[in-house]
Amino acid sequence: MKVKNELARQVMGEILGTFVLLVFGCAAAAQVKTSRETKGQFLSVNMAFSVGVMSAMYLCRAVSGAHLNPAVSLSFCVLGDLAWIKLLPYSLAQILGAYLASGLVYLIYHDAIMEFSGGILTVFGPNETASIFATYPTDVVSVQTNFLDQVVGTAMLMLCILPLNDKRNAPAPEALLPPIVATVVLGISMSMSANCGAAINPARDLGPRLFTFTAGWGTEVFTCYDYFFWIPLVAPLVGGVLGSIIYLVFIQWHLPELEDESEPESEEIKEQTKEQMEHNSKKDELYLKMSSI
Amino acid sequence: MKVKNELARQVMGEILGTFVLLVFGCAAAAQVKTSRETKGQFLSVNMAFSVGVMSAMYLCRAVSGAHLNPAVSLSFCVLGDLAWIKLLPYSLAQILGAYLASGLVYLIYHDAIMEFSGGILTVFGPNETASIFATYPTDVVSVQTNFLDQVVGTAMLMLCILPLNDKRNAPAPEALLPPIVATVVLGISMSMSANCGAAINPARDLGPRLFTFTAGWGTEVFTCYDYFFWIPLVAPLVGGVLGSIIYLVFIQWHLPELEDESEPESEEIKEQTKEQMEHNSKKDELYLKMSSI
Amino acid sequence: MKVKNELARQVMGEILGTFVLLVFGCAAAAQVKTSRETKGQFLSVNMAFSVGVMSAMYLCRAVSGAHLNPAVSLSFCVLGDLAWIKLLPYSLAQILGAYLASGLVYLIYHDAIMEFSGGILTVFGPNETASIFATYPTDVVSVQTNFLDQVVGTAMLMLCILPLNDKRNAPAPEALLPPIVATVVLGISMSMSANCGAAINPARDLGPRLFTFTAGWGTEVFTCYDYFFWIPLVAPLVGGVLGSIIYLVFIQWHLPELEDESEPESEEIKEQTKEQMEHNSKKDELYLKMSSI
Amino acid sequence: MKVKNELARQVMGEILGTFVLLVFGCAAAAQVKTSRETKGQFLSVNMAFSVGVMSAMYLCRAVSGAHLNPAVSLSFCVLGDLAWIKLLPYSLAQILGAYLASGLVYLIYHDAIMEFSGGILTVFGPNETASIFATYPTDVVSVQTNFLDQVVGTAMLMLCILPLNDKRNAPAPEALLPPIVATVVLGISMSMSANCGAAINPARDLGPRLFTFTAGWGTEVFTCYDYFFWIPLVAPLVGGVLGSIIYLVFIQWHLPELEDESEPESEEIKEQTKEQMEHNSKKDELYLKMSSI
Repeated sequence: MKVKNELARQVMGEILGTFVLLVFGCAAAAQVKTSRETKGQFLSVNMAFSVGVMSAMYLCRAVSGAHLNPAVSLSFCVLGDLAWIKLLPYSLAQILGAYLASGLVYLIYHDAIMEFSGGILTVFGPNETASIFATYPTDVVSVQTNFLDQVVGTAMLMLCILPLNDKRNAPAPEALLPPIVATVVLGISMSMSANCGAAINPARDLGPRLFTFTAGWGTEVFTCYDYFFWIPLVAPLVGGVLGSIIYLVFIQWHLPELEDESEPESEEIKEQTKEQMEHNSKKDELYLKMSSI
Repeated sequence: MKVKNELARQVMGEILGTFVLLVFGCAAAAQVKTSRETKGQFLSVNMAFSVGVMSAMYLCRAVSGAHLNPAVSLSFCVLGDLAWIKLLPYSLAQILGAYLASGLVYLIYHDAIMEFSGGILTVFGPNETASIFATYPTDVVSVQTNFLDQVVGTAMLMLCILPLNDKRNAPAPEALLPPIVATVVLGISMSMSANCGAAINPARDLGPRLFTFTAGWGTEVFTCYDYFFWIPLVAPLVGGVLGSIIYLVFIQWHLPELEDESEPESEEIKEQTKEQMEHNSKKDELYLKMSSI
Repeated sequence: MKVKNELARQVMGEILGTFVLLVFGCAAAAQVKTSRETKGQFLSVNMAFSVGVMSAMYLCRAVSGAHLNPAVSLSFCVLGDLAWIKLLPYSLAQILGAYLASGLVYLIYHDAIMEFSGGILTVFGPNETASIFATYPTDVVSVQTNFLDQVVGTAMLMLCILPLNDKRNAPAPEALLPPIVATVVLGISMSMSANCGAAINPARDLGPRLFTFTAGWGTEVFTCYDYFFWIPLVAPLVGGVLGSIIYLVFIQWHLPELEDESEPESEEIKEQTKEQMEHNSKKDELYLKMSSI
Repeated sequence: MKVKNELARQVMGEILGTFVLLVFGCAAAAQVKTSRETKGQFLSVNMAFSVGVMSAMYLCRAVSGAHLNPAVSLSFCVLGDLAWIKLLPYSLAQILGAYLASGLVYLIYHDAIMEFSGGILTVFGPNETASIFATYPTDVVSVQTNFLDQVVGTAMLMLCILPLNDKRNAPAPEALLPPIVATVVLGISMSMSANCGAAINPARDLGPRLFTFTAGWGTEVFTCYDYFFWIPLVAPLVGGVLGSIIYLVFIQWHLPELEDESEPESEEIKEQTKEQMEHNSKKDELYLKMSSI
């Protein structure tokens, strides 16, 4: 019953991976919000998103590279590690996974959301529940600042995760990339989510926003805060590419070439080098070639 | 003095492992509750359960596979990794371990529980102490939602831990599975415990509930909230199997076959592959064959 | 300038290791207490002790095995992994390290302690500062319960850390033992410190208590709570041995023998086995032989 | 486009690394402060600095060794691992990176800082925002205590991170040094930041202080608290060297020599030893020679 088409497998991987990421994250947001912070705090939402990143990466990175984020996919296109033709299918898969996850979280927390909101699904006020799903800005921040915030957050993401798997740098262990990438995401959530919620991921924001739109929160989820919704769609794409370029220009170009491993050397050294610098099984090389975050 | 019977050894392993898991978890719940959150918060209970998972797994996974959870054992039966004949002994061992742990936690926190509750062991009210041991729902959530909640929580558990040890996927390091599984459990506790406490484990719930029943909390531990107790017994079994099937259908079936390692290849590549893709000592293969979470 | 005597080196290692452990732990307690929980909470003290365990283990385990705790040293004597003749020097070294650390923390936090306490160094009342250093029980807990609490806490410690380095079990990576042991200690702090502070270590408690005795807190540090001070001295010794025996009886005896590695096998398997099951450099074997927690 | 000059590459690495460290740290401080602790707490600032350390180390340690701190660079000079001629360029690069990061954080949090402070950028009072960037002492602590505090904090830093990469000790895995060093820094933040903010790093303090000076906080950032600013400049340098010396004298001198690996031994043992004790690819050896924290 194996799906023969590689892109179809990858799309399935991205749907399920982004689904898992958002189930953890949005469910934690629902838990904290509807329990009125008695069963968790802001920090636990950050931590749950981080666990979601880790879990989603272990789940699907052998299949699809576990981008989970159109800004990451776009960056890999720019870096030449993902075919441009796959950018749209990857992005739509990610948005779909996020949409489905929002629906499931809504089912689980339906009763609690109704109790908390008094049955009125709204974007504003002390009983608002829209922020369980998509991100919303604070009142005092200008559109330019929010745009910059999302550019910087996503640039930090790419700048910090690209070295983790760069064999010419001093990379993290291949099999431990998921918890380490998750830690970077935790750091961004703890430091750059005050303005507008640190989406740093168009799918993580649009999928849930579309869900709330269809589930009764109405058009306000798009129109509120002066049509804020476009910022977490566009700015992360800019930021991801920007961060990738900064990594290339300031670090990657200046790293030493990998030694040509086919060069005849003492067997021992060669083996060591391979072990240390690759940490990649053959399978991984095939599957993660373009995208192995 | 070695116990010759394999199943007896496995049962001992599961008893002790689940005992350790519950000592950490219930003791933390007792600490937070009886100190009126001055010596910990909701988050620290989540974290202590997580440390319990890690510790229990290191303790007994070479002996019994460290299921610690009938829903996990059932899932492994369905996946063909545990003999069906062992399902009942495993489950009873897990419940017994959880029961014994509750008794020990009660001994340690007896004085504090008496002080906190004014000596009245009850399931309801501001001085209730039953929730130190078993899980209880909140008032506003319907039975269907609680059932779904436990199905989803346990499905997420299996969906997120199966890839961690799947050699055809991009698995975590064998020797670091315990902290990574523990992190997944932490994530579930932080995001899916608002409705009814995230048991996601029939033994974790029934053992302590039986203990409170025998130790003076009375029949209310079973009758309260409309006989809620059956939900964390049944729903996790459904959820565990469901999550396993989702993993198979969406991910596992589409992963590449492991290369046949007996195939003649260059010695070097072969060695690399083995190292990277197996991360399994021979002993582990023998002992963790069916169940190495 | 190398110290030739092995025991002298080990004593130096234990002094410095326990010193580091206590500097982290007591300084965090001072920070939280004197800042009136504005710069940390109960959890951050638990976490700082945990970081102290990790740091101290990396610092001195190649020298002395990083026991850092007379209860651990005694357990290793019982297990045949430390010569009985070394038990007293190890324990005194640990107490001395803890004493010196308390002194340093007092110097750093002198001004803050004076401000917080109004200059009155006392064991009781809202401005007490003795609990920055040694552990004290809560009012409501009986002496028997406190004794049991310390027995159980230390038994859990040994039960959970012995498998981590047991090659016949499924051990943690040798080079990552420090953070994993530290996580176990964190778990114990979060779940078993409500009654009397989770010393689970006679040196961690006596060293700081002696310091406060000499630094102006007076004899009350010993006489208070009905001479409570003997409990964290004696109970952990009992608990450590008890936990070790439980590990032996319930788990260790039933694990398979390590394959005789001198047995002629295919070179490849042999190598794999060694790598996976030992994770020990030759040096480690020499130095950590008896005690490599 | 590769930069040919090694020092230029290293300076670029240190600028970018320290930039990343401070973006995480100062942005988290801004988030917590301007959200009035609704979007994080003291602990989350500690954690964000820790994530910053990890991310910065993965980013630039193959290029520059990831000192990120003049006190670390000075210590490596004293230890003979960094040429003295590089100390000033490294330090200036670190200060510049910290300055630039402060500027970026100010841009992102400009609106929130203005709202929080009412537009008055000041060092004192409930609406002060200077402490988002540089460190400031509490009122009750004397200059001597603050100096000692910074000496001890930085000494603990060097004492705890030097063993992590010492092949003669029992080091951490090379590829996991960044998260482990980050954990040490987290421990120091949680235990030694109550007096004066745990800068333990002249660049982390001076860079942001210079930024606030130029951005409108005025000369008070230097003159306040009796010209406190010199303490986090000078004391960490003293402390770093002191901690390094303590490590040498109490631990390093007494560790066994590494076996001469060119000695003829059985191939197998040799290989094992190399793997376990080095964990260093050839490239790493070249690049991290002096400084691979």
